[in-house]
Amino acid sequence: MQLVRLLQDHPLVEIVYLGGESSAGKPFCSLYPHLGHQVELMIEPIDLDKIASRCEVVFLSLPNGLACEMAPQLLEKGCYVLDLSADYRFTNLNTYTKWYNKERSADLDVARTAVYGLPELYRDAIASARLVGCPGCYVTASLLALSPLLKQGLIVPDSAIIDAKSGASGGGRQAKTNMLLAEADASVSAYGIGGHHRHTPEIEQVCSDLAGHDVKVQFTPHLMPMVRGILATVYANLRDPGLVREDLLTIYKAFYRNSPWVKVLPGGTFPQSKWACGTNLCYIGIEVDQRTDRAIVISTIDNLIKGQAGQAVQCLNIMKGWSETLGLPQLSFYP
Amino acid sequence: MQLVRLLQDHPLVEIVYLGGESSAGKPFCSLYPHLGHQVELMIEPIDLDKIASRCEVVFLSLPNGLACEMAPQLLEKGCYVLDLSADYRFTNLNTYTKWYNKERSADLDVARTAVYGLPELYRDAIASARLVGCPGCYVTASLLALSPLLKQGLIVPDSAIIDAKSGASGGGRQAKTNMLLAEADASVSAYGIGGHHRHTPEIEQVCSDLAGHDVKVQFTPHLMPMVRGILATVYANLRDPGLVREDLLTIYKAFYRNSPWVKVLPGGTFPQSKWACGTNLCYIGIEVDQRTDRAIVISTIDNLIKGQAGQAVQCLNIMKGWSETLGLPQLSFYP
Amino acid sequence: MQLVRLLQDHPLVEIVYLGGESSAGKPFCSLYPHLGHQVELMIEPIDLDKIASRCEVVFLSLPNGLACEMAPQLLEKGCYVLDLSADYRFTNLNTYTKWYNKERSADLDVARTAVYGLPELYRDAIASARLVGCPGCYVTASLLALSPLLKQGLIVPDSAIIDAKSGASGGGRQAKTNMLLAEADASVSAYGIGGHHRHTPEIEQVCSDLAGHDVKVQFTPHLMPMVRGILATVYANLRDPGLVREDLLTIYKAFYRNSPWVKVLPGGTFPQSKWACGTNLCYIGIEVDQRTDRAIVISTIDNLIKGQAGQAVQCLNIMKGWSETLGLPQLSFYP
Amino acid sequence: MQLVRLLQDHPLVEIVYLGGESSAGKPFCSLYPHLGHQVELMIEPIDLDKIASRCEVVFLSLPNGLACEMAPQLLEKGCYVLDLSADYRFTNLNTYTKWYNKERSADLDVARTAVYGLPELYRDAIASARLVGCPGCYVTASLLALSPLLKQGLIVPDSAIIDAKSGASGGGRQAKTNMLLAEADASVSAYGIGGHHRHTPEIEQVCSDLAGHDVKVQFTPHLMPMVRGILATVYANLRDPGLVREDLLTIYKAFYRNSPWVKVLPGGTFPQSKWACGTNLCYIGIEVDQRTDRAIVISTIDNLIKGQAGQAVQCLNIMKGWSETLGLPQLSFYP
Repeated sequence: MQLVRLLQDHPLVEIVYLGGESSAGKPFCSLYPHLGHQVELMIEPIDLDKIASRCEVVFLSLPNGLACEMAPQLLEKGCYVLDLSADYRFTNLNTYTKWYNKERSADLDVARTAVYGLPELYRDAIASARLVGCPGCYVTASLLALSPLLKQGLIVPDSAIIDAKSGASGGGRQAKTNMLLAEADASVSAYGIGGHHRHTPEIEQVCSDLAGHDVKVQFTPHLMPMVRGILATVYANLRDPGLVREDLLTIYKAFYRNSPWVKVLPGGTFPQSKWACGTNLCYIGIEVDQRTDRAIVISTIDNLIKGQAGQAVQCLNIMKGWSETLGLPQLSFYP
Repeated sequence: MQLVRLLQDHPLVEIVYLGGESSAGKPFCSLYPHLGHQVELMIEPIDLDKIASRCEVVFLSLPNGLACEMAPQLLEKGCYVLDLSADYRFTNLNTYTKWYNKERSADLDVARTAVYGLPELYRDAIASARLVGCPGCYVTASLLALSPLLKQGLIVPDSAIIDAKSGASGGGRQAKTNMLLAEADASVSAYGIGGHHRHTPEIEQVCSDLAGHDVKVQFTPHLMPMVRGILATVYANLRDPGLVREDLLTIYKAFYRNSPWVKVLPGGTFPQSKWACGTNLCYIGIEVDQRTDRAIVISTIDNLIKGQAGQAVQCLNIMKGWSETLGLPQLSFYP
Repeated sequence: MQLVRLLQDHPLVEIVYLGGESSAGKPFCSLYPHLGHQVELMIEPIDLDKIASRCEVVFLSLPNGLACEMAPQLLEKGCYVLDLSADYRFTNLNTYTKWYNKERSADLDVARTAVYGLPELYRDAIASARLVGCPGCYVTASLLALSPLLKQGLIVPDSAIIDAKSGASGGGRQAKTNMLLAEADASVSAYGIGGHHRHTPEIEQVCSDLAGHDVKVQFTPHLMPMVRGILATVYANLRDPGLVREDLLTIYKAFYRNSPWVKVLPGGTFPQSKWACGTNLCYIGIEVDQRTDRAIVISTIDNLIKGQAGQAVQCLNIMKGWSETLGLPQLSFYP
Repeated sequence: MQLVRLLQDHPLVEIVYLGGESSAGKPFCSLYPHLGHQVELMIEPIDLDKIASRCEVVFLSLPNGLACEMAPQLLEKGCYVLDLSADYRFTNLNTYTKWYNKERSADLDVARTAVYGLPELYRDAIASARLVGCPGCYVTASLLALSPLLKQGLIVPDSAIIDAKSGASGGGRQAKTNMLLAEADASVSAYGIGGHHRHTPEIEQVCSDLAGHDVKVQFTPHLMPMVRGILATVYANLRDPGLVREDLLTIYKAFYRNSPWVKVLPGGTFPQSKWACGTNLCYIGIEVDQRTDRAIVISTIDNLIKGQAGQAVQCLNIMKGWSETLGLPQLSFYP
């Protein structure tokens, strides 16, 4: 739904096909009346031949384990594929199988060609990819906060702790008792505690790639009583106790110099999650506690835009050689 | 769950039986960990003989249409019954059948003995009842606001409009997409518009009883982005254009003189819903618009206490001849 | 702030001047960091000559009572003026003086030339106006719901009751205890009860203009525990008891045929306030209760867009002869 | 206000004096209408002689820096004093002066007799104290989570990181723009980042006392879009990599064996903040991540009860030799 909203406003994109299963045959607006007057498409049954004949680029937004059954055929038929599930995010498919309970012998060769869709880290590879696996909200917020520290070897790698806070829309539209307003509002709770959340191995894969060796992180997601937005508070021990805040600011600004969607805030300024809401931006605030020799990095994104649909459109822009900011919202919905 | 919480703190009540179907065999605390350390009861399968042998009073908190199958037997076995569903709220069972899709030929005689469990209106009848059908949150807030006007014949009866705003906990714990935090938070909406909500006939039944003739009301419920509380804004045209606010204040204070749970606020003061949260209180604020000859009455209750479990305990107190305030919370949870 | 956000995205507008008093000399981004990376303007002291020399159109967003001191000079210097305060919304300045405590002898002639900036009702007059007084959120939501009924003479005029529910951002950024999150969250309350809210005379002025005679309405605003959005539930007695929902739907659709920002929903569909959030749209749902011969109309807008800044930009588009939808957001921010 | 609410329900307490400055002369209910019908006291000007003549025990709930001017006199006049400010929480008054900008030469001798009012750690000292400085919400949640680990020497002391999430009521009733519902709702943000929050030295003082040597902690408070409740997520590196979750559960249960207000949850269960709301309870959930050799402890309390007024009443109970649970709420307000 967020993808449709963004693509509808993209000047170089035309949506020519919307696929669905249980909703096939219905007009899109019957599911989302709030977009109904602007989007007049029907939802069609999934037919890969028809899709390939009509579409140059296909976005897959499916439950985990389905994209890997469709992507190979779509690629073979000549489409570019951007997948929003976990299916093409893992370089080691055993890790995928362990966390997602799905055998992956069938598409090993295709999976090897997939590029990890975080443009700030893998921009060049995305530019020449035909298959991109886009990371989700928790992972994006975590990695954008941690990457400069790891890449520059500034921290004790296994000291990294990510305490992440997410709005409830990250949980999707499936009806579950614990996600009811009456249960989840006016409350905060942690889950997936102790490395048991499936985003832990995904974060570790990219961190290890950046560091050049195996890295373990502590990742704890929290459910917030709000709809949108994610804020990650990241702690890491500095290798060199002499580093101060200004050093890190310089390093972060350089690291993200060519990344229009990441905004490193001035020293002493830290983001509230709402600043990013409605945009594809990531705001980053940085502090060094010289008493404890720790870096504390706060990052925030809109979980449904930079953490999901916006990221995919940003990847599309790069794959097509367009401006990375094309068609994506920049001005916060605030307040 | 709210009943357990209140009865646990009631000085003259002991909970000796908790019945359930899908949850039978589990400890109560496995469903409600937040009460778990204080409530050590097991949930047992429903066995009317066992219930009757152990309990003097039985509270039924079941989906509509089930209480009417159990209450007759429990009464016959000597229990007092307080029902929190709609089954024993209607004097005309055809109305019940029309709105609740359930034939009621089997318990006609029993239903005739049921008393409507709104103590502020039917205190004496409750005192001598063996079967009480307790009204819910919308109806309680609406009737406490309207009753003095109707009883005294002060308004054009069919002019009454009730615009009610409720927290999401009124919808129960069943998982529905539209009640998810991500869907219902940060938003307000009306439903059951145009007399299509099943509380309309229930409100009208009591209003007609008070007025001495048939009364039609306009009742529009709204879903608020909050967990608890209900606020009813009630509009009605005054018969006598000479009436001013102070007249109504006098009438309301007299009407509720012996009702410890209703607080008529001083002129110019109006309640916010949170004032009642955590208590069995109903706050009422009153205004007269002399330009339009309309009375505007604002009432508020905690939908899960005075609008549900607390009301049932208040009825119990009356049935047993105890003080009406016994064991019920008086001090707001605010803020 | 909302105006800057919208104008920044408008393809035919360039912001060349931002005026302020206490904030003069600061960069705009120091006040609103969430817009800071996109908006690089400085806030300048208010100098009418400088404004007039640089700007073709001036938006005034000031406390009530200040615009009427600046607008006459700006008009004389050749600017178009769109005012977002109450100063130019009243045809009878005695009414203004009574409710806003401000004498208005100085600019009587100018005030007479002002057009009421609700495009759906006064589109033609706005097209040729040089001074427009744009209505706010409560009035816009109320009038868009009521106007077709009044204009066609379908209702008993004085029977109209508007029960309006607004997010807290309508109260502005001034720090008041009752608007703190800890006080206002998880609660709902009414205010300005009994015709005491200053939007009552403004609504009545336009209603009277539409009906062709004096009309009194009952308007009760409510504060919701949410940031954005407004929902008005409007009740009115139908003159002709034979009218059904489909009649009203036909009438509303005809009335708003040329109004791209008003969406009349199909029968049986009613909006939640969040559908309009982030857009300049007004959604309207309609019902007739044939038991009570009442029309019930539910309208919803984003209080900060169609209820404020977006409305002003819509008026600008009309004044300049541009498309009425130019530069304004159409796709909801939902969820 | 919370103190009045709790003391009003306490069976062995009578409130005989309520002092205030700007509110002196007003009835308590004029400030808090939601308690008005139950509390009929007037607020009186502060007169230490009058207080001492009437009261056996005095609770001071004042801005930091005022209690230290009154407590010495009240003690001299024979009162017991429970202070809710920071004035009597520090063993090293230089630390107090540094963080609270207040010289403390005048009451050095009195300060030396003050006991830190966290009953779970200093129960015996509280029992014989005449002056108790009660800790606030952040510190209480943090220390109850960390203390068993530190006391038993199980963790690398300086590895402790406390990521705390608090409802907005912790900020008090003072009107500030950033605490408005329109600003703070639907958002989360960190503050006092990098050891700059004044609760850091207070937490470190107690941790050092428990560990027997200087301990530094990383404490980061976050503002949640909710009214009440606090949740602390605490991370610490285990000294002995062989420890598993069950070991820690055993240690925590033993540590809190005699603490009726701390509930250690079964393995795999973690609290949501709402479970504690309305009670004086602290819930603790524990995990060990064997991949990283880290303990992760989640604690939650109601910031206004166990984190403020309830804690003071708990201390009172101990000072008077009453049951520690007397008059304090045990059953959650949930949902």
